Amino acid sequence: MNNLILALDFGGTKLSAALYEVAGTAVPPQLLDLRRVHTPSDVDAPYELATMLSLARELIPVGRAPTATGVSFGGPVDYVKGIVRLSHHVPGWEAVPLRDIMAREFDAPAAVDNDANVAALGEHRYGAGQGADDLLYITVSTGVGGGWILAGRPWRGHEGMAGEIGHTVVDPAGPLCLCGKRGCVERLASGPYMAQGLAERRGVAPDSLSGRDVAEAAAAGDEVAQVVLLRGAWALGVGIGNAANLINPQRFILGGGVTKSGEQWWAEVRRAARETALPEVRFDIVPAALGDNAPLWGAAALALTTYSD
Amino acid sequence: MNNLILALDFGGTKLSAALYEVAGTAVPPQLLDLRRVHTPSDVDAPYELATMLSLARELIPVGRAPTATGVSFGGPVDYVKGIVRLSHHVPGWEAVPLRDIMAREFDAPAAVDNDANVAALGEHRYGAGQGADDLLYITVSTGVGGGWILAGRPWRGHEGMAGEIGHTVVDPAGPLCLCGKRGCVERLASGPYMAQGLAERRGVAPDSLSGRDVAEAAAAGDEVAQVVLLRGAWALGVGIGNAANLINPQRFILGGGVTKSGEQWWAEVRRAARETALPEVRFDIVPAALGDNAPLWGAAALALTTYSD
Repeated sequence: MNNLILALDFGGTKLSAALYEVAGTAVPPQLLDLRRVHTPSDVDAPYELATMLSLARELIPVGRAPTATGVSFGGPVDYVKGIVRLSHHVPGWEAVPLRDIMAREFDAPAAVDNDANVAALGEHRYGAGQGADDLLYITVSTGVGGGWILAGRPWRGHEGMAGEIGHTVVDPAGPLCLCGKRGCVERLASGPYMAQGLAERRGVAPDSLSGRDVAEAAAAGDEVAQVVLLRGAWALGVGIGNAANLINPQRFILGGGVTKSGEQWWAEVRRAARETALPEVRFDIVPAALGDNAPLWGAAALALTTYSD
Repeated sequence: MNNLILALDFGGTKLSAALYEVAGTAVPPQLLDLRRVHTPSDVDAPYELATMLSLARELIPVGRAPTATGVSFGGPVDYVKGIVRLSHHVPGWEAVPLRDIMAREFDAPAAVDNDANVAALGEHRYGAGQGADDLLYITVSTGVGGGWILAGRPWRGHEGMAGEIGHTVVDPAGPLCLCGKRGCVERLASGPYMAQGLAERRGVAPDSLSGRDVAEAAAAGDEVAQVVLLRGAWALGVGIGNAANLINPQRFILGGGVTKSGEQWWAEVRRAARETALPEVRFDIVPAALGDNAPLWGAAALALTTYSD
C-alpha cells in the first residue's frame, strides 16, 4: 500500500488541508482529497489549530495513518526547532511548537516552514522550478517574500531568516516602509502599497483601492496607475538583479496576486532585472506554476523531506 | 612523511608561490617557503605563467612532489572547468586552462578559483571566519568583490558568478559606474572611485589622488574627504544589509586596502548595514585576519579540497 502524506496550509485568511498518496520518489504525489475553510477576521491561534486538526482528521481514511505531515505557515517560523515565531495577522501564535503538535497528533514525523520557503520547495519539485536547482521563489502579494533553493535544497540562512528580498533597499530616497527604511522592494512593489500610492495621487482615501485596482486602471490606460505599477515592477526588478549578482541563481519564480498585473508589469520586471545584473550573470524570470494550491504541494514536498533527507 | 601543498597567487601586480606542509585535516598547513615577484606593467599571460612556474619549481625540494596545487587568480574563473575566463589587467588570459596546466606540470590534482572566492575559503579555514559556516568575504580595494561560504563550503552560483556585491545597486540616483549602472556599491566604495570623487570636489586632476589619500585627509579632519569616505562606507553598509536580508549569513569579513580607512569608516559600514537589515537578521562584520598572504592560505585550502571533497 502506498504512503499517505498530510499537507497543511495556515494562510492569511484560510486554512487548507490535503491528503496525498506517494507511490515513490520518481513520481509526484497524487492529490487524493482537500478541505478548505475561510477564517473569520477575529480568530486566534487555538481556534485555527483546532479547526485545522479537525479538517485534517476528516481527510484520513479509517484504518490508515499518514507517514508524514508537512506544514506551510504564513509567518516567521524557526524551521530547525519546528516552532512558529509569530503571526502578523492572528494573535496567539507566539512560540507555538507546531511541528511537535502535529507529530504527536498524527504519530508521524512532521516539518513546518514559512509559506515562501514551502512554496519555493513545491515549485522546485512539482512546478516552474523543475530541473532548476538554484532558484529564488518570490511572492508578490500583500507583502513581498522569498524562498531559496540552492543546490537543490532549501536555503534558510544561518538563523532561518534568508529570502527577505522584500526588505532589500533599492531606492534610499524612496518612501518610508513600515520596517523603518526607505525604498524597500516591498514598499514599492506590494499590492497594498501600490494601491496606497495611487490613492494618494488621486487624492482619495488610502484604503479605498486595492492592488488589483492599480493593475486594472493601468491596463485601461490610466497613466497615473501605470506610473505606480511600473515603479513597483522596476523596484522588484532591481531587487532581482541585485540578488542575481550576489547569488547567481538560474531562475526566479514569481507568484502572488500582483504577478497577474499584465504583460507591461512582467516586461518592466525583466527589463530592470536584466539591466541591474552584470551581462555575464544569466537567469530567467518565470511565473509560478502551482497556483492557489502551491503551499499544499510544497507542504507535501516538505513532508517527504522528513524521511528522505 | 607529510604531504606538500603548492599555493599560487596571480595578483594584479605581483606573483606569489608558497609551499605548505600538511600534517592532517585537524591542524592548519604550515608555511615552509614563499617566493614573490612584482610584475612589470607590460606583461602578458605567457610571461606570467612562465614566471610563476619557475617560482614554484624553485620551492619544491629535490626528490619531493606536491600532492595538490591550489591557484588564486585575480580575475573571473570558471571553477568547474578550471579555466581562467580573462584578466582585466593582463592580456592573453582569455580561456586559459590553468587547472590542467598546473595538474600536468606538477603531476598532481589542481584547482583554480578567483581571488575573492579563494580568500573567502582561506579566511573560513584559517582566518576570521573560523567557526562561522555561513559568511561573505568582501574585498574593498581597487574594486569591490565577494566570495561566499554557505554551509561550510564555497558557494559559486549556478555559473560561477556569485559574490558580485560590488555591482549591486544601492542608489539608483547615484553616479555612473563603468558597468553602465548608477550607484553600484563599487562605484561609491572602491578606493579609486572615492579618490576620483574627492579630486572632483577639489577641482584637481581625477587621477591625482588615491583611496589612501581620501582616508588620510578624512582622518586629518578634511570635511570634504569625510563626506566622500563615509558615503562609500554607507554604500557598502547598505549592500551588506541587503545581502544579510537575502541570505542571512552569520558573518561578513572585510579585507582590502580601503578597510584600513579608520574607525569612522568601520562605524559607518556597521551602522548602515544594521539599519538596512531587518531587526531579526543578525550578523557581525569583522576585519579579515590573514592579511597579504590571504590568497596563498586560501589557495592552500583550495588545494586541500581536491582530495578531501
